[in-house]
Amino acid sequence: MARPYIVTLTTDFGLADHFVGTMKGVLLDVFPDVRIVDISHAVQAFDVLDGALMIADAYSYFPAGTVHMVVVDPGVGSDRRPIIASVGEHYFVAPDNGVLSLVYENAERITVREITSSHYFHQPVSTTFHGRDIFAPVAANLAKGVDPAKFGEEISDYAAFAAPRPKAAPDGSLRGIVLKMDRFGNLVTNIRVGDAPHILGENAPPFRITIGKQDITQIYSHYAEGAPGELFGILGSAGYLEICSNRGSAAKLLGAGKGTEVAVRMEGAAAAGNR
Amino acid sequence: MARPYIVTLTTDFGLADHFVGTMKGVLLDVFPDVRIVDISHAVQAFDVLDGALMIADAYSYFPAGTVHMVVVDPGVGSDRRPIIASVGEHYFVAPDNGVLSLVYENAERITVREITSSHYFHQPVSTTFHGRDIFAPVAANLAKGVDPAKFGEEISDYAAFAAPRPKAAPDGSLRGIVLKMDRFGNLVTNIRVGDAPHILGENAPPFRITIGKQDITQIYSHYAEGAPGELFGILGSAGYLEICSNRGSAAKLLGAGKGTEVAVRMEGAAAAGNR
Amino acid sequence: MARPYIVTLTTDFGLADHFVGTMKGVLLDVFPDVRIVDISHAVQAFDVLDGALMIADAYSYFPAGTVHMVVVDPGVGSDRRPIIASVGEHYFVAPDNGVLSLVYENAERITVREITSSHYFHQPVSTTFHGRDIFAPVAANLAKGVDPAKFGEEISDYAAFAAPRPKAAPDGSLRGIVLKMDRFGNLVTNIRVGDAPHILGENAPPFRITIGKQDITQIYSHYAEGAPGELFGILGSAGYLEICSNRGSAAKLLGAGKGTEVAVRMEGAAAAGNR
Repeated sequence: MARPYIVTLTTDFGLADHFVGTMKGVLLDVFPDVRIVDISHAVQAFDVLDGALMIADAYSYFPAGTVHMVVVDPGVGSDRRPIIASVGEHYFVAPDNGVLSLVYENAERITVREITSSHYFHQPVSTTFHGRDIFAPVAANLAKGVDPAKFGEEISDYAAFAAPRPKAAPDGSLRGIVLKMDRFGNLVTNIRVGDAPHILGENAPPFRITIGKQDITQIYSHYAEGAPGELFGILGSAGYLEICSNRGSAAKLLGAGKGTEVAVRMEGAAAAGNR
Repeated sequence: MARPYIVTLTTDFGLADHFVGTMKGVLLDVFPDVRIVDISHAVQAFDVLDGALMIADAYSYFPAGTVHMVVVDPGVGSDRRPIIASVGEHYFVAPDNGVLSLVYENAERITVREITSSHYFHQPVSTTFHGRDIFAPVAANLAKGVDPAKFGEEISDYAAFAAPRPKAAPDGSLRGIVLKMDRFGNLVTNIRVGDAPHILGENAPPFRITIGKQDITQIYSHYAEGAPGELFGILGSAGYLEICSNRGSAAKLLGAGKGTEVAVRMEGAAAAGNR
Repeated sequence: MARPYIVTLTTDFGLADHFVGTMKGVLLDVFPDVRIVDISHAVQAFDVLDGALMIADAYSYFPAGTVHMVVVDPGVGSDRRPIIASVGEHYFVAPDNGVLSLVYENAERITVREITSSHYFHQPVSTTFHGRDIFAPVAANLAKGVDPAKFGEEISDYAAFAAPRPKAAPDGSLRGIVLKMDRFGNLVTNIRVGDAPHILGENAPPFRITIGKQDITQIYSHYAEGAPGELFGILGSAGYLEICSNRGSAAKLLGAGKGTEVAVRMEGAAAAGNR
């Protein structure tokens, strides 16, 4: 496929150190025409699931042929493999630790290669900063148009984990968790439209979402529908049920955060029909 | 006017989520040659005035024809309109909630259009992320050279508020407030040269600036003039009176911040002549 | 040398204000083809040494001919000089306050010029924001290909300080300090391979690193070798001894940070041989 000369960056490096700047230097040194785009460097430190959610939410909006560098890599320097994944029309360069798991989900064409052609690496290769020494030069070469096959052999035993999914509980409720809190204090749960089509579609029958000690009975279509201090649900822009408040932080109001449990129950006739 | 292919971004999205990266993906997908520049994503969440100050301070330094996306949008998904504003030689794409108020101030040529041509939008349009689905694709098309008139009709009832201005108090003092605190702890007030020409010009007569319980009697031309721990005024680079300390945070020294009142009084003969 | 049209930015401006965006506007206005790359804007406020470490760690990874703007400038507006430094194949634009000291170290070809050609400046020149009014327009012109000699005369009395180096103590130990803490809580010391070749090379004899009340006796090659909660040394990617923990913050575990003392002692026969 055509390459738009774009390399995106998703890391847990933060912006307070020289790490991101140094990687950009290597990208530009290898391929002066590369166009570098930050997705985020605020993935929770060492948190592979958090990185997996970040890249999965963003990558598909980029042009076909984009190269996505995803460096959340607590195992750097160990025997975990560096990989190139071709997924649909996108390329990914990452450690093989599952950080691409949610990109692989539902994807149609997946080819994963172990990166072994060390002549593409920035020498000497450190044991602690493969973002600079392996992933950046490989991504730059990919963006430049080098065939993925040049970097190493295809593998089929690449790492992938299942994201935490909501479960049906014996009492008829659906039990999910908060995957992350966004900048506005919205709580992004792991409950998607397909998990709760009744409540996230049109004409929802009565329901109750319980989070902490709070019950929520409204799902709105946009934030401004909420009264001050009110908690409500929103079907968020990435397809997940979010717990929100209008111009305020639901996370603060609830004292909730990543990992907090969320239960959805149908009420009255709807609950009866559900059994 | 010529388009330099630049889109700037000013939002309250922060950098910890995928939001900014996703918008950049859409911009690049619509217009692969676009050059994206972040102004800031640290506008206070939901704070339209803070966003208005941010874009007003920065936009005029960019080349003519730049497209500025300003997304501070607590009303996203409600009936607030998306707009394109042509102001002097710059384009703006924003919600019509007043976030461009300070850009409109003193501007000579303002044309504002409601964005209604939904075939430019990223489909399906969510109710919670118009930055991705409306503002980004419209900005990319504008940067590419599409005529603003293609996006919708001109309107004259666009939203604009007056920034808080200092007022003359009965005791002869000028009363202003702190608009924001910058990274260094400097307190940016809403007092401009025109509001207090005596004290901000050359050969200032004796004056007293009161903030909290502190009196300040010096205005310096640069930070390094201040002694350690001393508080003083500076005519800041954006034209506002700032309360500062040399290599230290005036905000911390004063326990002051956004909204704190600031009073300016002339002293002695100057005060008498002022009455 | 050829110019790759790249300007990098290293400042203590943070990302919460309009400062960085405004400088980018000036860069693009002066030279529309410039490619702007952020190294970091999170240098500690007013901390020239911290800025010196940041740019020294990153600059050499960029292509030859890159222009590096380094604006950590507590003396802005005073009589400290603005300079252009040509060091090896890189250009630097900065205040002459020592922020390039670690770039000068070990460099072979250094030419420093005082910037005096004010017709390149953004007028009017403020006394508080030379990043916008002096450094950005000069950097953009340099990136465009203007000869450094056009901006001012060569000087030889430019500011440079020595970075704090580890010292041999009377008890035979090597005493260093923590220069900085990175995003992961790793403590970067000022001890380099050449300072402690015994312990940072292959087949290290027994040694003891003391930091706070903790003794460390292991240097690993990568983070994942450490057991949960274990503290160990790493030869970091920038060539310094770092005190680390696997998937955890050594800084938190130790209650240590910038300036904390670190002592390295050889043990047993190695210590005897050392005397």
